[in-house]
Amino acid sequence: MQLTVYLAGQIHDDWRKEVEQKSKEKGLPLTFVGPQTNHDRSDNVGEDILGEQPDKLYKDDAASDINNFRTQVLMKKSDIVIALFGDKYKQWNTAMDASTAIAMNIPTIIVRPDSLIHPLKELSNKANVTVETIDQAIEVISYIYE
Amino acid sequence: MQLTVYLAGQIHDDWRKEVEQKSKEKGLPLTFVGPQTNHDRSDNVGEDILGEQPDKLYKDDAASDINNFRTQVLMKKSDIVIALFGDKYKQWNTAMDASTAIAMNIPTIIVRPDSLIHPLKELSNKANVTVETIDQAIEVISYIYE
Amino acid sequence: MQLTVYLAGQIHDDWRKEVEQKSKEKGLPLTFVGPQTNHDRSDNVGEDILGEQPDKLYKDDAASDINNFRTQVLMKKSDIVIALFGDKYKQWNTAMDASTAIAMNIPTIIVRPDSLIHPLKELSNKANVTVETIDQAIEVISYIYE
Amino acid sequence: MQLTVYLAGQIHDDWRKEVEQKSKEKGLPLTFVGPQTNHDRSDNVGEDILGEQPDKLYKDDAASDINNFRTQVLMKKSDIVIALFGDKYKQWNTAMDASTAIAMNIPTIIVRPDSLIHPLKELSNKANVTVETIDQAIEVISYIYE
Amino acid sequence: MQLTVYLAGQIHDDWRKEVEQKSKEKGLPLTFVGPQTNHDRSDNVGEDILGEQPDKLYKDDAASDINNFRTQVLMKKSDIVIALFGDKYKQWNTAMDASTAIAMNIPTIIVRPDSLIHPLKELSNKANVTVETIDQAIEVISYIYE
Amino acid sequence: MQLTVYLAGQIHDDWRKEVEQKSKEKGLPLTFVGPQTNHDRSDNVGEDILGEQPDKLYKDDAASDINNFRTQVLMKKSDIVIALFGDKYKQWNTAMDASTAIAMNIPTIIVRPDSLIHPLKELSNKANVTVETIDQAIEVISYIYE
Amino acid sequence: MQLTVYLAGQIHDDWRKEVEQKSKEKGLPLTFVGPQTNHDRSDNVGEDILGEQPDKLYKDDAASDINNFRTQVLMKKSDIVIALFGDKYKQWNTAMDASTAIAMNIPTIIVRPDSLIHPLKELSNKANVTVETIDQAIEVISYIYE
Amino acid sequence: MQLTVYLAGQIHDDWRKEVEQKSKEKGLPLTFVGPQTNHDRSDNVGEDILGEQPDKLYKDDAASDINNFRTQVLMKKSDIVIALFGDKYKQWNTAMDASTAIAMNIPTIIVRPDSLIHPLKELSNKANVTVETIDQAIEVISYIYE
Repeated sequence: MQLTVYLAGQIHDDWRKEVEQKSKEKGLPLTFVGPQTNHDRSDNVGEDILGEQPDKLYKDDAASDINNFRTQVLMKKSDIVIALFGDKYKQWNTAMDASTAIAMNIPTIIVRPDSLIHPLKELSNKANVTVETIDQAIEVISYIYE
Repeated sequence: MQLTVYLAGQIHDDWRKEVEQKSKEKGLPLTFVGPQTNHDRSDNVGEDILGEQPDKLYKDDAASDINNFRTQVLMKKSDIVIALFGDKYKQWNTAMDASTAIAMNIPTIIVRPDSLIHPLKELSNKANVTVETIDQAIEVISYIYE
Repeated sequence: MQLTVYLAGQIHDDWRKEVEQKSKEKGLPLTFVGPQTNHDRSDNVGEDILGEQPDKLYKDDAASDINNFRTQVLMKKSDIVIALFGDKYKQWNTAMDASTAIAMNIPTIIVRPDSLIHPLKELSNKANVTVETIDQAIEVISYIYE
Repeated sequence: MQLTVYLAGQIHDDWRKEVEQKSKEKGLPLTFVGPQTNHDRSDNVGEDILGEQPDKLYKDDAASDINNFRTQVLMKKSDIVIALFGDKYKQWNTAMDASTAIAMNIPTIIVRPDSLIHPLKELSNKANVTVETIDQAIEVISYIYE
Repeated sequence: MQLTVYLAGQIHDDWRKEVEQKSKEKGLPLTFVGPQTNHDRSDNVGEDILGEQPDKLYKDDAASDINNFRTQVLMKKSDIVIALFGDKYKQWNTAMDASTAIAMNIPTIIVRPDSLIHPLKELSNKANVTVETIDQAIEVISYIYE
Repeated sequence: MQLTVYLAGQIHDDWRKEVEQKSKEKGLPLTFVGPQTNHDRSDNVGEDILGEQPDKLYKDDAASDINNFRTQVLMKKSDIVIALFGDKYKQWNTAMDASTAIAMNIPTIIVRPDSLIHPLKELSNKANVTVETIDQAIEVISYIYE
Repeated sequence: MQLTVYLAGQIHDDWRKEVEQKSKEKGLPLTFVGPQTNHDRSDNVGEDILGEQPDKLYKDDAASDINNFRTQVLMKKSDIVIALFGDKYKQWNTAMDASTAIAMNIPTIIVRPDSLIHPLKELSNKANVTVETIDQAIEVISYIYE
Repeated sequence: MQLTVYLAGQIHDDWRKEVEQKSKEKGLPLTFVGPQTNHDRSDNVGEDILGEQPDKLYKDDAASDINNFRTQVLMKKSDIVIALFGDKYKQWNTAMDASTAIAMNIPTIIVRPDSLIHPLKELSNKANVTVETIDQAIEVISYIYE
């Protein structure tokens, strides 16, 4: 059974490649989707497509129009969401994507370091499973196929 | 027309009282609900009711069971959500509450300082209105009654 | 049985007062809600609350944030929508409100002159009832109480 | 990932072919659906299938039965809606289709000229993205595949 | 706890009065709603409000616009549906109202004579309870208050 | 685009074969599903599988358990419902299936002879299209592919 | 804020009275609803209303028609469900009511003794809060009003 | 038409293999999914993936996080649920899965021995069909393909 997994979270390092690589090694029949991972492109896409905006507020709003469009299309196609939180950045996008997935009844795994237990406690509690590493998240999905 | 407003956001200062006071001064027929605002009680409610937990992870999970229960009961009764973000704290709860409200089709106002435009851009874009001050949020609600 | 009626349509003349007056004369237990009917206020509310915007596009977008917020709050409280179309103006707001109401399963009456039969044919077909006059719309609602 | 796109809007010129051609040039894996684009057939389909109707009102209502049937079947199969507004015609069908898509949680792009900013402001505000040209709309969809 | 009951079924005799009278005698806190019970008014309401129609088909369609409007408004307010079938008439309206209520998750009681067991078997099977007399239907509702 | 069509209606003659044959001749990419068309099997399936029942009421209820199970599985897979009414039989099943489809937002075509205009008027009014012949129903579906 | 609480669970002792009494002592503005607590009446209500049934299977099915009708009416009115499990009885009704409430997005508290941790683990995990005593369940609800 | 069937119920014997084998013999185009059937793995999966837990309560809760994740993913893919109850074990999981399926509008068959008629009466009443043997359950599904 082929499943589609949305990978929500920061776009500053290569964690999605790690998820994809490790899933492939386990032979899991998964298709991965997610946000734009080129950070500059993600920030600039509003101006790239719609033209120059008056200032940062409007530039950001134009970019988020298109980023949210992408997320909505792809999340509606997804069977599972993995939402990864790290030590850096505000990561409200990640909290938004995880919360939206939960509200849409899409099974959701949160990956977060030990240090974030307290501030994430209510969101962790609403998600299906909270783990600390990418390996654990893949094991949880792998369990579906046992 | 009496409306119920859920006030999502941090519980470290008195901002909810300010909202309530200013709404009262304008004579708006609003009922306000929200999370537990006693910070210690919010953190300890799991152990207070369920007894001592093995460590911080479990203490936090027990508390969030009960905090999420409260939020779900009250948000389902709400016609409007105001979600306030400030400069401090992780505030993933606030992002979770705002995202859940939006997914539930509850009209949502975000209040955030200028400095948070960029990290909140996708969530602001999904909310109905984003403002910078409590006064502006109240003006938006007041507009319903004009 | 008290019912709430959302009055969608242009805000350039007094048609809502006529609806309210005639309903009152018939003793119908109806509460009426609707958009901001002060046209300048409706156009300027974004700048009034959020401050000056860079140009007309942004001024309009700021106003529509708040107008849509108002409509969403009030339409969710409504049992019936009357959507009135006239000979003037684009009236895409009216088409949007009627279509949204129909998608939300709120019974909807369209009022339109004879001259608009053709361009409104698909929307009329999806609404519950299409009439030509306000008096007829009130008769349709009055029929619930017979 | 193959996606289906509903192309809502007027049927007086060849804009849909342009969308399809340009998407093909970019190699996007899209399937396009939309309304009947033969204008006479669209207007006459009620009488074509159901027989002669008493007058224009009934002819139009018979046609819209069948046009709405087609739209409902195809929109339920669609992942994305592009709604194009131009300078001519009432285009309430387009507003209806865009509003219905938004209410059904289908990501929606509006294409409209500069001149229509003001009358479309509330609908633009509810859509995911508003652009001015077909090329921009395709760029927005193309962004999903980056 | 005050409950609202929609009384679906034929409008050729006084069965609704019997339901109301017997419920009153038992002191049940029920509000009853239902279709127009003046048969001529129900058949003519389209022409009464919208004016003369070209022939019977259009007269019937105009009336059903308004009858369906009434039913939709009132059924959305109802906590329970009683659908009564008798030996006479086609009663497809009654089957439609009961099926719609079941699809809307409104608890539904069917009242039908012994002679209709076979043709109603699938609908009875989907309803919550099927009884043979009005007294039994009232006993079922009365049981909620024990 | 392959579509699935549920054929609701009586099972006393071969009308489904006619629909399938004529659709095939037109080259329409349709999959047809529907109820059990062997009348004896449909009536007896409860006892066939569950064993002898105490009397006709229980025999019918056992059969309808399984007939409704079949219908629910297949209708959830369907993009379109055709509901055919004829001069004979009670046909409450057909009214139930059409009403359920409409409540599930599945586009629905009713086929009925002229003689049934009046008793079917409210259901026809809620369906997308009402026609008099199987040929017309196929033309309506065929129109999707033009 | 007045809230309605459905009390799911066995009907062999007085635990509901204890909940009501203790809530009253705390001054909580709660309305309690629940199943028929007269065990004989609950088992016999099918035959009481519908007449003698062929054997125990049919007697039970007739009773459950009416018990499920009652539960559906009352649970749709409820803001909170408390589901109490004890050491005795199969209690599949209780599991059914709790699971249905959770699927309906009604906040749910499970009360169960220590000895039932293992067999209830998946259901506890889906509920909002699991406690061991009635006092704890009331404290959880009381927390909403702090 | 390929259908997916979720097999809910105890994991102490080989009943799922029997269902699969017998379906295969009948040539039914079914895909079967279900919970983890290795009992130790099911109980230990929480600790297997998340590490040692403080005591049995937390071990069970960790396991159920992951078991519920699996069930939610697979049930959303299912067209039919078979829920088998036997004489042993609490089987609240089975009641939970059947109730959740019914609330999600997934057609559900209950298999239970004669001895469980009474305690399962309300759940049987809400399911589509209740049978006593696996052979009967397969016959019910087989009937869809006749």
